[in-house]
Amino acid sequence: MESAIKTIITTFLGSSKGGENLSGSSFQKLVKNQLGGLMEDTNSSSAVKEMQQGLDENNDGKVSFQEYLTLIGYLANNMSQRKTEGNQDTS
Amino acid sequence: MESAIKTIITTFLGSSKGGENLSGSSFQKLVKNQLGGLMEDTNSSSAVKEMQQGLDENNDGKVSFQEYLTLIGYLANNMSQRKTEGNQDTS
Repeated sequence: MESAIKTIITTFLGSSKGGENLSGSSFQKLVKNQLGGLMEDTNSSSAVKEMQQGLDENNDGKVSFQEYLTLIGYLANNMSQRKTEGNQDTS
Repeated sequence: MESAIKTIITTFLGSSKGGENLSGSSFQKLVKNQLGGLMEDTNSSSAVKEMQQGLDENNDGKVSFQEYLTLIGYLANNMSQRKTEGNQDTS
């Protein structure tokens, strides 16, 4: 678990170059390079831009670590629902 | 990243035996076995009980996946602050 949480952090810090926020362009790159297997439309900059606006609670045009964690939570929720639904189908 | 998010999910589902919530005892075990390196007092059942109550937004005495993600986000936030502070010390 520790390494999983570290991966989530280092992925953010790698894209934000150690800073506390991701710019629009670094968020686009992170989504495209890291989350392509977890989401659709990661190659569509307009779709990613729309997602960024949805996450941008303080409307500063950037993605803070907290807003990024909201995205990770959303992805984890989706994946876990698919897993629990998968279990119900096979049980 | 995909495997990191999967680890976070499978750790929950492993402890909840595929269910949508963790009971008090399974939450105690998860914290003790998985998060010992990330937090203090994971061996203190009263400290873990207090943490569980802090997470239990709907007061049902259980920990849902969403409430569990709140804990993961909290841990990730702490770790990332230590990392960014660490960078500032050395730069």
